[in-house]
Amino acid sequence: MSIKTGIFGAAGYTGWELIGILHTHPTMSIHFAVSDSNAGETVGINGLKYVKQHEATLDEVDLVFLCTPHLASAPLAAKALDAGAKVVDLSADLRLKTPESFAKWYQHEHPVPALLPTVYGLPEVNRHEIVGKEVIANPGCYPTSSILGLAPLAKAGALKPGAPLIIDAKSGVSGAGKNPKPDLHFVEVFGDFKPYNIGRTHRHTGEIEQELHALAPNAGPIIFSPHLLPVDRGILSTIYAPLADGWDYAKARELYTDMYADELLVKVLPEGQTARLKDAVRTNRAVISLTQAAPDLLIIVSVIDNLRKGAASQAVQNANILFGLPETAGLLEN
Amino acid sequence: MSIKTGIFGAAGYTGWELIGILHTHPTMSIHFAVSDSNAGETVGINGLKYVKQHEATLDEVDLVFLCTPHLASAPLAAKALDAGAKVVDLSADLRLKTPESFAKWYQHEHPVPALLPTVYGLPEVNRHEIVGKEVIANPGCYPTSSILGLAPLAKAGALKPGAPLIIDAKSGVSGAGKNPKPDLHFVEVFGDFKPYNIGRTHRHTGEIEQELHALAPNAGPIIFSPHLLPVDRGILSTIYAPLADGWDYAKARELYTDMYADELLVKVLPEGQTARLKDAVRTNRAVISLTQAAPDLLIIVSVIDNLRKGAASQAVQNANILFGLPETAGLLEN
Amino acid sequence: MSIKTGIFGAAGYTGWELIGILHTHPTMSIHFAVSDSNAGETVGINGLKYVKQHEATLDEVDLVFLCTPHLASAPLAAKALDAGAKVVDLSADLRLKTPESFAKWYQHEHPVPALLPTVYGLPEVNRHEIVGKEVIANPGCYPTSSILGLAPLAKAGALKPGAPLIIDAKSGVSGAGKNPKPDLHFVEVFGDFKPYNIGRTHRHTGEIEQELHALAPNAGPIIFSPHLLPVDRGILSTIYAPLADGWDYAKARELYTDMYADELLVKVLPEGQTARLKDAVRTNRAVISLTQAAPDLLIIVSVIDNLRKGAASQAVQNANILFGLPETAGLLEN
Amino acid sequence: MSIKTGIFGAAGYTGWELIGILHTHPTMSIHFAVSDSNAGETVGINGLKYVKQHEATLDEVDLVFLCTPHLASAPLAAKALDAGAKVVDLSADLRLKTPESFAKWYQHEHPVPALLPTVYGLPEVNRHEIVGKEVIANPGCYPTSSILGLAPLAKAGALKPGAPLIIDAKSGVSGAGKNPKPDLHFVEVFGDFKPYNIGRTHRHTGEIEQELHALAPNAGPIIFSPHLLPVDRGILSTIYAPLADGWDYAKARELYTDMYADELLVKVLPEGQTARLKDAVRTNRAVISLTQAAPDLLIIVSVIDNLRKGAASQAVQNANILFGLPETAGLLEN
Repeated sequence: MSIKTGIFGAAGYTGWELIGILHTHPTMSIHFAVSDSNAGETVGINGLKYVKQHEATLDEVDLVFLCTPHLASAPLAAKALDAGAKVVDLSADLRLKTPESFAKWYQHEHPVPALLPTVYGLPEVNRHEIVGKEVIANPGCYPTSSILGLAPLAKAGALKPGAPLIIDAKSGVSGAGKNPKPDLHFVEVFGDFKPYNIGRTHRHTGEIEQELHALAPNAGPIIFSPHLLPVDRGILSTIYAPLADGWDYAKARELYTDMYADELLVKVLPEGQTARLKDAVRTNRAVISLTQAAPDLLIIVSVIDNLRKGAASQAVQNANILFGLPETAGLLEN
Repeated sequence: MSIKTGIFGAAGYTGWELIGILHTHPTMSIHFAVSDSNAGETVGINGLKYVKQHEATLDEVDLVFLCTPHLASAPLAAKALDAGAKVVDLSADLRLKTPESFAKWYQHEHPVPALLPTVYGLPEVNRHEIVGKEVIANPGCYPTSSILGLAPLAKAGALKPGAPLIIDAKSGVSGAGKNPKPDLHFVEVFGDFKPYNIGRTHRHTGEIEQELHALAPNAGPIIFSPHLLPVDRGILSTIYAPLADGWDYAKARELYTDMYADELLVKVLPEGQTARLKDAVRTNRAVISLTQAAPDLLIIVSVIDNLRKGAASQAVQNANILFGLPETAGLLEN
Repeated sequence: MSIKTGIFGAAGYTGWELIGILHTHPTMSIHFAVSDSNAGETVGINGLKYVKQHEATLDEVDLVFLCTPHLASAPLAAKALDAGAKVVDLSADLRLKTPESFAKWYQHEHPVPALLPTVYGLPEVNRHEIVGKEVIANPGCYPTSSILGLAPLAKAGALKPGAPLIIDAKSGVSGAGKNPKPDLHFVEVFGDFKPYNIGRTHRHTGEIEQELHALAPNAGPIIFSPHLLPVDRGILSTIYAPLADGWDYAKARELYTDMYADELLVKVLPEGQTARLKDAVRTNRAVISLTQAAPDLLIIVSVIDNLRKGAASQAVQNANILFGLPETAGLLEN
Repeated sequence: MSIKTGIFGAAGYTGWELIGILHTHPTMSIHFAVSDSNAGETVGINGLKYVKQHEATLDEVDLVFLCTPHLASAPLAAKALDAGAKVVDLSADLRLKTPESFAKWYQHEHPVPALLPTVYGLPEVNRHEIVGKEVIANPGCYPTSSILGLAPLAKAGALKPGAPLIIDAKSGVSGAGKNPKPDLHFVEVFGDFKPYNIGRTHRHTGEIEQELHALAPNAGPIIFSPHLLPVDRGILSTIYAPLADGWDYAKARELYTDMYADELLVKVLPEGQTARLKDAVRTNRAVISLTQAAPDLLIIVSVIDNLRKGAASQAVQNANILFGLPETAGLLEN
């Protein structure tokens, strides 16, 4: 079997990462790579060249990856589905379940409400829902790190009802995209570190909350504090989880080792170790560590590469499921 | 008036920073700079050379700064006091009030228990206690950032009784000292970011808790999570403070603008701004911002330069008080 | 005496650095700071606000600093001179002596040829020419580092006639300006290092050659190879200088120690030491070291802060001369 | 066929990189990994654990890689050869052809002179000499970058006789090894850049000169200037090559495109492009660009990853040749 894929938004950081992964994928091949601004230039792989959007031959591919910005992605998803291709959308357009929620967090009417709700593609949490679908919303980078870090507690009802869940997250600069902006100038970031959009204003707050409350309806609000880290890639989230009555560190740890025991793309560190950024950077896996802060308070450190498990490699993982391939095909190189 | 000072541990990062500040101080001069390993080398200022510890002429100075490691400092403090010099100890030896507390957090008997309790020198919180003393315990870098960030709430009884206070702190590498260690090798730190000693195991936890509980006896435990940031200097603490009944964001903000209104070395940012590392790096001041996370949860971001307000410049601030000088003498260059 | 100054292009990296220096200058004050894009915002010093260009009150100032781009600067210089102000132009507009030379290196007709030739303001080389002038061309950052590194040999006729002079230069990113560009994005620069505009294509080649050949008409061509260094500031130039017959390392060294013996803003390191970037970063001085590569080949390492001695502090040094002040007024803080 | 290998010095940066490459090698497997200081710890691959040197079962392996320091390596090479294993020595012990040369550059008597001369393993230059040997001296990182950059000119006699060849080289910090040293502390390197051991004092000078003069006996001396770059990995060498009479840029370029036309691990960039560090970092190939500086002066920029083509991957390339495997087996992943 060979699966022909097309990529929109192929010249950004995520698109480039995706191309690298697909290049060595045993079953998938890249049929076209869309980038209006780079059209005509060589991609650097197999003689492939970037093409303009209107040149994308949607009817010739089995699958489309959308690495395009929000608002631009949903219309492309609709078009690709019409042409008979499956879709993994890496933008935020299809992640929130309702047009209302989208409008709340993105301050804009949803471009194609008919596509909602779409299945949220976090395989370790809901892979059975992904099987057989036509279109998948690929999770955001911060949400991937946050939800994998909290899901074992949430599913088991081990989170203290109503108590705020503090996620103090730090991301490398590639998470902010490739477009040059004053705040991303090397001189501005070098030697600096800063919080931004804290206090429940960052758009990923809604996404994290939606997914966690689906697992644990009585969980408290998410307090999400992103920070810009002066490195190129990687996300480290330090999560403070108050435990429900009857739970302690040992029982909580068991939830993690159980849930992720057979997961090839999530690693739970042994007791006494703490996850660090380099554990996950340039890998396709999440790495999680657990530390007791108080008898009823757990610190979870959850690390991913924002461009891999937080974007491109998770998209391929979802695509593998959509086509009935081994879920980690092309993803276990290291 | 001219005040002669001597420095022990003068060749480390803090010692070097202190030398730079004293070099331009209007009243203080450096009489000797001790560094056993650098003895004989020129300091680079006024022809001064590093001397060995036994060459330090304690009886010729008015004031001694101790930038020596813990356990080594207290005996030096005792000796300097005997010789008639005042002492600002930048080590941890005199910060905890009792030998028991020291033994708990430093896993070692206190070297000179007779010196305890010593006044803790955080001028913005307790400058009246510093006046007229012979010896001062200069606060740790993380505690300075943390306590300045929480003091207004603590003093006013605005912290929710018993609720954990989460301090997610990030420090540049100079905070770990100048001695080469595998973990501080450039290659290890470059591109990385990691928590360390989280879960109430870091020694500064006890110091922060002691000082905050002195201000607010019913405050909850400190959950202190330090992280190593791949920059040379600066500490940014993201603090999550649950408010007591009757307090909200606006009233809490007023506590900060009131307490720090006349402080030249603490700046509270206007609403809507968030503190970043560069606001404080290479300055002598703390910069604090406030963000509402929920009606009863405040996020305080507190930033300092770990080598200045977190060590050397605060030591000079304390010394200024000890000698009745203007508190900010030599500290307002920028 | 008080000298009122105005700054055009005040919100860029150089402008900002200049503001910092003038803020503590004993004699000069800032009367206006022009930045069209930041107009209305506070500068952060003495309540000063950025103004638009047409709001600049040229007739109220004694001196104008131009931190504006080339082509924009010369017309402003003409206007300021008309209004009776002296001018230090930090752009490239007035550095080359003839309109032809400007056209060759900048691929554009000179905007105000009547201003040429202007005195080139490198005080250690030609301070007597600066005295009493109305307008000065402030040297480029790379040229400052290069010319200070070669001037002692050039003046003495110690350079091998006709032999190429290789200048392998490395600059921090602030040298490329504050405007966000794809190549200056943090993610692009982080972990990278690259040559650019090598092979006599960089515009500073002409400027360096003009000044060196003025000192040593028989010197060979400049081979100038700039590289982008992943740090925020500083230039380190490694210069390979073939010596003329009769010269050797010892005699060459004497030329440097002689020429710079009384210079407060140039430091020649003792034998056996090699200059490094940090020797000059955040200082106003150049630091130079000499190493013998072969009996007739000298390696000169010349280091400056590109924003200080390579731009803003040198501009103040020139301004001090223009107004008969001590040349280092406001520049000896460290 | 399966080739059993053993690694000495397996816990350093080069050893670790080698383990990563061998882990995915189609034919080679790791039988033991020696590290006295890490003995007993898991390597992280296939359950392998580090062992102490005396536990290394030399008689069970076909091939030994020595990532040990100079002076320690040659005796191990002798022992491994005695036990019947082939040897690729990544240290400097076997690179220089004579004990005298070794003594000159390493200020120490050669530990096992009987092993000299050993074949120098730079396959693109002399792969026919490597075939069938028992022991290979793997080139140093700087020499690999330098010699690949100059070999086409040297072999063709296109270098100007007797003219100095200036190699201005910049290396990431991993080139200095994993042992913590004051100069490699993160705080020291961050924001800095510095030359070290310039002026024909760096040990690699002798190695580069030996190999280049073997190709071009009338070539001039090597002027080798290494600099420490504040990144973790990669070497970029800017090489200034004066051309012999009758040679120009176009003819010189042809030498490069000819010599490297079929090389899978050396890429010559098209005209107008300049090599940058990221072209080679985390790849197994060298990337070379050519720029005309003057009609008779060529600038060659030669880039490698110091831990890959500058050490571990070149060692595997040599090993592939020793065992008659495809030369790039296990090395073409990207």
